[in-house]
Amino acid sequence: MIFVAGPFMWLAMSSFPTRLLEGYQSFMSGRYTAERNRYRDLAEAGQEPHTLVIACCDSRAAPETVFDCGPGELFVVRNVANLVPPYAPDGNFHSTSAALEFAVQSLKIRQIVVLGHGRCGGIKAALDVDAAPLSPGDFIGQWMGLLKPAAQQIKDSVLLTSGERQFALEHISIRNSIANLRTFPCVKILEDRGKMALHGAWFDISTGELWVMNSQTGDFSRPETSLA
Amino acid sequence: MIFVAGPFMWLAMSSFPTRLLEGYQSFMSGRYTAERNRYRDLAEAGQEPHTLVIACCDSRAAPETVFDCGPGELFVVRNVANLVPPYAPDGNFHSTSAALEFAVQSLKIRQIVVLGHGRCGGIKAALDVDAAPLSPGDFIGQWMGLLKPAAQQIKDSVLLTSGERQFALEHISIRNSIANLRTFPCVKILEDRGKMALHGAWFDISTGELWVMNSQTGDFSRPETSLA
Amino acid sequence: MIFVAGPFMWLAMSSFPTRLLEGYQSFMSGRYTAERNRYRDLAEAGQEPHTLVIACCDSRAAPETVFDCGPGELFVVRNVANLVPPYAPDGNFHSTSAALEFAVQSLKIRQIVVLGHGRCGGIKAALDVDAAPLSPGDFIGQWMGLLKPAAQQIKDSVLLTSGERQFALEHISIRNSIANLRTFPCVKILEDRGKMALHGAWFDISTGELWVMNSQTGDFSRPETSLA
Amino acid sequence: MIFVAGPFMWLAMSSFPTRLLEGYQSFMSGRYTAERNRYRDLAEAGQEPHTLVIACCDSRAAPETVFDCGPGELFVVRNVANLVPPYAPDGNFHSTSAALEFAVQSLKIRQIVVLGHGRCGGIKAALDVDAAPLSPGDFIGQWMGLLKPAAQQIKDSVLLTSGERQFALEHISIRNSIANLRTFPCVKILEDRGKMALHGAWFDISTGELWVMNSQTGDFSRPETSLA
Repeated sequence: MIFVAGPFMWLAMSSFPTRLLEGYQSFMSGRYTAERNRYRDLAEAGQEPHTLVIACCDSRAAPETVFDCGPGELFVVRNVANLVPPYAPDGNFHSTSAALEFAVQSLKIRQIVVLGHGRCGGIKAALDVDAAPLSPGDFIGQWMGLLKPAAQQIKDSVLLTSGERQFALEHISIRNSIANLRTFPCVKILEDRGKMALHGAWFDISTGELWVMNSQTGDFSRPETSLA
Repeated sequence: MIFVAGPFMWLAMSSFPTRLLEGYQSFMSGRYTAERNRYRDLAEAGQEPHTLVIACCDSRAAPETVFDCGPGELFVVRNVANLVPPYAPDGNFHSTSAALEFAVQSLKIRQIVVLGHGRCGGIKAALDVDAAPLSPGDFIGQWMGLLKPAAQQIKDSVLLTSGERQFALEHISIRNSIANLRTFPCVKILEDRGKMALHGAWFDISTGELWVMNSQTGDFSRPETSLA
Repeated sequence: MIFVAGPFMWLAMSSFPTRLLEGYQSFMSGRYTAERNRYRDLAEAGQEPHTLVIACCDSRAAPETVFDCGPGELFVVRNVANLVPPYAPDGNFHSTSAALEFAVQSLKIRQIVVLGHGRCGGIKAALDVDAAPLSPGDFIGQWMGLLKPAAQQIKDSVLLTSGERQFALEHISIRNSIANLRTFPCVKILEDRGKMALHGAWFDISTGELWVMNSQTGDFSRPETSLA
Repeated sequence: MIFVAGPFMWLAMSSFPTRLLEGYQSFMSGRYTAERNRYRDLAEAGQEPHTLVIACCDSRAAPETVFDCGPGELFVVRNVANLVPPYAPDGNFHSTSAALEFAVQSLKIRQIVVLGHGRCGGIKAALDVDAAPLSPGDFIGQWMGLLKPAAQQIKDSVLLTSGERQFALEHISIRNSIANLRTFPCVKILEDRGKMALHGAWFDISTGELWVMNSQTGDFSRPETSLA
């Protein structure tokens, strides 16, 4: 690990982003002041989040914002397109699997939500028939390869509009992540015992609507319409 | 993809978490209503986040909260202990590398913040000398293995208290992630040209303090003291 | 044409349905009384409906109800699944083509809406993989055969839930009917001259929502959300 | 399926008709709000309409309006002049036969009403001695050909006024449709068993009068006079 100072311009860029420092000041004078004791307690007692959320990196779909959750509530994994890879104890490092294991085994979280969203760039990339790799490493191509069979099937659904194909794969991807969660023995066993609940949800950035997955059919609908 | 209905308790658990639905209602009547047009614009025009944040899954350290950022500002990767693995174009899927590639190559983000925090469970696990795997897959063990040489050295620093060892590895880990970011050609080349800025920050859950890394020395300090 | 009186039970059934006579009395004392002059004028001057609606026979999706339209407004074709067959001047009788010709050539209607709806039994039949003919004539099988290639493609989309497959084919069918409308020279020529507008809409029986087709992309969305 | 954007005027015409959107808003705030639960139930449980109505496309004679029927009551076929073709299991697609089959075999409807009306344009076309085809396909000519022998006989009844000839053929056409209904084995068998009732009715647009066919004589009369 080496820190090499770059040329002048780099130095100019090296101070911490002003926008973030201002935001932090706002946090300190606002939320933190209001919830000071809660933060202290959370630090002392440790976190006991009620839900693991697997969400997308997208800047418009932060789970704490969509669910208006405060500190200590959500343990959050965020990767491109909210994917969960299948269980693969192969000795490689697996970011999402590690977080899942930590959430379930160490934090004893018993409620998992896979949160997808509309206009997902990862899903769009998976459906792009002419996509060239973004870089020689093609990391996005490899990562979205987790959805490859589904993406191929949807690409072939030429009677759907491009918007409908995107919508469909966003929903399929959530179901796929949930199915992959069940390949992890710790999840499967707990669910079979009635001690673990897996949920899917999809956030429409444009309208602000939250669509919730019916656990039995896999269909998505808005809770205000489906729950009445 | 098969949806198998479980026993009675599971059925009872299958409805979407009430807490999250209530939070969503609060979001809709609050922030969404206030920022409706911004959400519409973000949906139409696409996201243009100014910063990629690599943060921890910890429920107490959400970057949108700490930096009080609104929709569209932060593209966020969250994994256990905010790690970045080194560049490894090996054809496997890499969650964090994929998100990094997408952020830099597709979204043209030119500012990256690695945000660590105090009392990090992942760092604690890496320092636990008696740690047994959390599950047969030992995903956390493998994942935190990315910090293995550093963790070993800190474990051996017996003159430090356990609190100091934790504090030290949390900071080392941030510097390590930044060093690994530089192993990605797309990051390195842009930084060398003065077009990419890499930052580190560390959030103290207990006091709400934000410590910012000095890009040249790697030291962490509170901005109100360092900037004053 | 022969009227053969049946046995006793049949005679008992031969009086006009009471429910309909009561409904008619209600119409006479209500709407007809309120709109007596309008009915007289419509009878004298002839109808000048502003829109041709091609809708489904379904009892829950009457266009006059959904669009709250009065006498003289909508010229309405209703067949199973609101299908339009392609132009086929083959000397056979074609119910829908005849109505289309009459609407465009004789009544000079310049606005056509294909109105589909959720939970359509015809679409469901088209997707039923195990469907046996309803009768030896298999008229529904033949009729829904107009959607055969689309239905087959959607049947093969096994990653969609059955609800999503139904939803998708309902929308595809509307677009298909609109595409087939364009195979009629009288429609195509007028549209090319900017004198004919073709629209799609989909009615959700359960929620009462109307989804409107974007004429350029073919996507469906609720007007309150898409029009803002 | 290709969506080709037309010239400027067409683009201007491409937004959904305002009159229909307003009507829909009226439906939502009126009838739908009043019958919300009924719509939900109808969506969940499926439709169980009590009557199949075969009616004309005419904008002035919607059966839901004339019979003041609500959602779920009437399964409605509408074609020009409310015709039923004779049973012809020839492998071609038959709009009306398909709807009839679906109504009787799938929905188990046991009551059918053929609803004609005054000033019917289709009947008028069938009686027009100088009629040129409306388009090269002559779909109306072919369709009204289902009434050809009757129309020819009435045309030759030179002692009737043109108004009387129109009136006569409108009634004959209803009886003809009923007779053709009986050529369908599924209808005939049920009727012979006393389990199916076939009715005729004729609506006078000008006066609002409903004339009901006497099932035994085929005569039409107003129910208030015949039932009194």
